Amino acid sequence: MKEAIWSAIAAALTEEIAAGHYRPGDRLPTEATLAARFGVNRHTVRHALAALAERGLVHSRQGAGVFVAPRPTDYPLGRRVRFHQNVLAAGQTPSRRINRAETRPCDPGEARILRLKPGDAVHVVEGVSLADDQPIAAFRSVFPAARFPGLLASVRETGSITRSLADAGLTDYTRAETRLTAQLADPVLAVALAVRPGAPVMRTVAVNVDPAGAPVELGTTWFAGERVTLTVADQP
Amino acid sequence: MKEAIWSAIAAALTEEIAAGHYRPGDRLPTEATLAARFGVNRHTVRHALAALAERGLVHSRQGAGVFVAPRPTDYPLGRRVRFHQNVLAAGQTPSRRINRAETRPCDPGEARILRLKPGDAVHVVEGVSLADDQPIAAFRSVFPAARFPGLLASVRETGSITRSLADAGLTDYTRAETRLTAQLADPVLAVALAVRPGAPVMRTVAVNVDPAGAPVELGTTWFAGERVTLTVADQP
Repeated sequence: MKEAIWSAIAAALTEEIAAGHYRPGDRLPTEATLAARFGVNRHTVRHALAALAERGLVHSRQGAGVFVAPRPTDYPLGRRVRFHQNVLAAGQTPSRRINRAETRPCDPGEARILRLKPGDAVHVVEGVSLADDQPIAAFRSVFPAARFPGLLASVRETGSITRSLADAGLTDYTRAETRLTAQLADPVLAVALAVRPGAPVMRTVAVNVDPAGAPVELGTTWFAGERVTLTVADQP
Repeated sequence: MKEAIWSAIAAALTEEIAAGHYRPGDRLPTEATLAARFGVNRHTVRHALAALAERGLVHSRQGAGVFVAPRPTDYPLGRRVRFHQNVLAAGQTPSRRINRAETRPCDPGEARILRLKPGDAVHVVEGVSLADDQPIAAFRSVFPAARFPGLLASVRETGSITRSLADAGLTDYTRAETRLTAQLADPVLAVALAVRPGAPVMRTVAVNVDPAGAPVELGTTWFAGERVTLTVADQP
């Protein structure tokens, strides 16, 4: 039963990773070393390592070996998605880098979603969200400019979108729906997220609404697939 | 930097499609029009369109032009996730292919999540879910064997996990939590999903519980990123 053997090896390595014997970023022993340790051939070891890679526990770098994947940041998708609280709850230190803040006419999709007239102005804020100084997501947030005239100055000053919205009189908002898909990082996104081009990315598109149900933000976020696990809690 | 230019054009068109500026079935402007708009030559536009076609966003019809591809299947992630209802709700015809159904000892992770003792038997069902005969997801479901002794025979007979669980006396179950990440399709997964190796995939890991809160299913699903949009509704 070959399968039982590789599966047992995968289980043993999983336990050792879970127990902290190998830590995120550590290189696992070579295939030859593991083959000797478990008394099997390298093909069987490779099968076990492929199973770990499939589960996102390790990743191999061409010519360099097999490495323990960083423990992904757990990021709850819920009605009140707040980056700072989410990262703090994951036991990490949040920070945000704003790369761009500008006002421009909305495009047709933005007009539809934010209920604007064609050509109405929107504020666009782009940046990167970090956990423990590692980029976990790139984001673009689009706001109706007429409703939040001083938003960009405030975002530039405070670096916080939540606080800037509060300063603009919006102290509470909730997420109406999140749409999620997977894509590959293009070269620009790869630089922002510090991943290789072609790395897997989760893109979420979400609309935030004020307590009266009016859309106040169209947010697109690109999460580094290898560093983030999105969680969806129990829903009624 | 030729690559940056076509890649930026592809990104701009992708955004406009995503934003609904061009809708499914719409013909994109001609190469000449796009070349004029972006101030590049037609070769560069062609390169950008080829990139969109590769990602399944557009398809070209000989002599007729380039058209926006049908929208991805919307797939709600919720407490009662049922494949058949979800696909029907998206206006498509659901079907399922079971590729494997076997009983084996649980691994340590399965034991922990399903609250089994090491070595307890689990039923494992693997297959592919299709919408309009196109694969949208590969799945692996793991069940405690002692609780559902006749499950595999029933799944083989009916092809339906939901119905087989109902036959085994479990008429209601809910999803406790879904964990989501992005990865690239390895060669085996690529064949199952009919995508190219390296294509973006959303992987969800979910635990279903019975009304008493006991875990009854550990399910892993790999969604074809280019064919599925997962949606997360408003949560309290």
